[in-house]
Amino acid sequence: MADTPALIAVDWGTSSFRAALLDGSGAILDRIEVPAGILAIPDGDFGGAFDRLVGPWLQQQEGLPVVASGMIGSRQGWRETPYATCPAGAADLAEKLVAVTSPGGHEVWLVPGVMRTDEDGVPDVMRGEETQIVGCLAKGDPPRRVFVLPGTHSKWAVVEEGRIGRFATFMTGELFAVLREHSILGRLMVGDTHILDAFQRGVVYGSRSGAGLLKQLFSARTLPLLERLPAAHVASYLSGLLIGHEIAEASTWIGSPHVAAGSPTIVGAATLVQRYAEALAILGIDGRTGPADAAVVGIRRILIAAGPLAAHR
Amino acid sequence: MADTPALIAVDWGTSSFRAALLDGSGAILDRIEVPAGILAIPDGDFGGAFDRLVGPWLQQQEGLPVVASGMIGSRQGWRETPYATCPAGAADLAEKLVAVTSPGGHEVWLVPGVMRTDEDGVPDVMRGEETQIVGCLAKGDPPRRVFVLPGTHSKWAVVEEGRIGRFATFMTGELFAVLREHSILGRLMVGDTHILDAFQRGVVYGSRSGAGLLKQLFSARTLPLLERLPAAHVASYLSGLLIGHEIAEASTWIGSPHVAAGSPTIVGAATLVQRYAEALAILGIDGRTGPADAAVVGIRRILIAAGPLAAHR
Repeated sequence: MADTPALIAVDWGTSSFRAALLDGSGAILDRIEVPAGILAIPDGDFGGAFDRLVGPWLQQQEGLPVVASGMIGSRQGWRETPYATCPAGAADLAEKLVAVTSPGGHEVWLVPGVMRTDEDGVPDVMRGEETQIVGCLAKGDPPRRVFVLPGTHSKWAVVEEGRIGRFATFMTGELFAVLREHSILGRLMVGDTHILDAFQRGVVYGSRSGAGLLKQLFSARTLPLLERLPAAHVASYLSGLLIGHEIAEASTWIGSPHVAAGSPTIVGAATLVQRYAEALAILGIDGRTGPADAAVVGIRRILIAAGPLAAHR
Repeated sequence: MADTPALIAVDWGTSSFRAALLDGSGAILDRIEVPAGILAIPDGDFGGAFDRLVGPWLQQQEGLPVVASGMIGSRQGWRETPYATCPAGAADLAEKLVAVTSPGGHEVWLVPGVMRTDEDGVPDVMRGEETQIVGCLAKGDPPRRVFVLPGTHSKWAVVEEGRIGRFATFMTGELFAVLREHSILGRLMVGDTHILDAFQRGVVYGSRSGAGLLKQLFSARTLPLLERLPAAHVASYLSGLLIGHEIAEASTWIGSPHVAAGSPTIVGAATLVQRYAEALAILGIDGRTGPADAAVVGIRRILIAAGPLAAHR
């Protein structure tokens, strides 16, 4: 019923807590967004934090289903939920929902992460991104869609017939941060204004097929050292180099025709989405932007796929 | 003349100062080795430090030629010397020797670094490694030899007809250090004992052709997270992964048959040389170890190529 609360969707990650109160049609009636990520919760008292943050909504209407995705279901979170394995869609995630109960007596259902083991026997994991991807899917989608979710640990996923068929993680964001702050490369950087020219130069060089990253990185030292790149441009150049390299790696991993032909959907924080869209455009790849509330939509779809939650207890 | 001092060779790098007193045949009569690298010299008083360290030798015999290689010739050193460009051998380096004079009146000749610009217009530089390479060459060498000089910024070089034809830098050592100390990967590491099994696993995975480093790095998180790699093995695994990836990148850069067929010569500090020899062996590549005093031998060859130093003033 419109305007009557029907679901609370929580996207609880490492650095932020976002909750939405939805009606039966999926419309968002109210929101909470605070920097209460799991690393910011004292003594691991996630239940207490939940009651303080979401309690007021639940006092207005008791018994609302609550579903949470993200790092809250990790070992460092409220409870570690088992991983679903690829291929994984809404129904597969719904099957593995795990209930926890807050001190205030509220039941919260945690969405599982997704795990995959690659051809080399090396595992990969995601927590939270699977729900965002589910929230981006639509009826009439082509049989195969490619997603990129940029971040500290950037994820690329191939969705086939509505389920995450495979995915891979790229350590781009974290590598940029540690190199800027702790390496010799950072010492030659001045400022962090985004310089599109320098970013583009980095994207093009970083994406050069056949060139390795360990060698490419040194260019962020030699170019300023030999005064072929101004110090104020180095951060943008390095950012472009790493993102360009990620796109090249991901293209190889996916099989490049799929990236070029498939218009990857970019999902995440606005600034990063913008950077990745720029980088894809520089490389002649058409990227599109995912919906802003992908996690909320994903949670609702998982809940619908679950049917009556009592049956999952 | 044997036993009579004829040359002082100084290898003055970022973190250490090594000097050798040689007779006319190249035999080493005496040595100084102290942690007085250029970063440890107060107020940039390199001349004063030189007089204190090497003065006693020069008091015994005045007018000995003194030649120094390494970062002492960089912008952060005594004086920035111009780079020689590839191809560069002993004679090319000798041509660009630059003299500085210490407060005590001693003349010191600085060996230039070497610069190269690759097909993408990106420059690369070395300072010190060129002298070590020159010191490794021998009559009867094959027309092409490959060298690897592992370190913070690892160098690979292809020597053709006695001159460094091209080289490339790989940021392997520094990347390992910043990832271990400042990234999420470091948090799962316990201890730094070298575990050959884990190192080997890393080398094999890191060298997989076609796989990208940004994706490979994440395995150093997921393997321990999913209890497929003990915490005490993670540092060795990551070290192997990076070195394996460097060897694969360098092989592509050189044209892999040359690495496989050419038995790269490994030059540097004993522990690192050992690790690289292990990694090459794991990948079925025959690596050989360079002479211990490569820098000293190289300096002597550059001096011989220079002829009378007065002509270079």
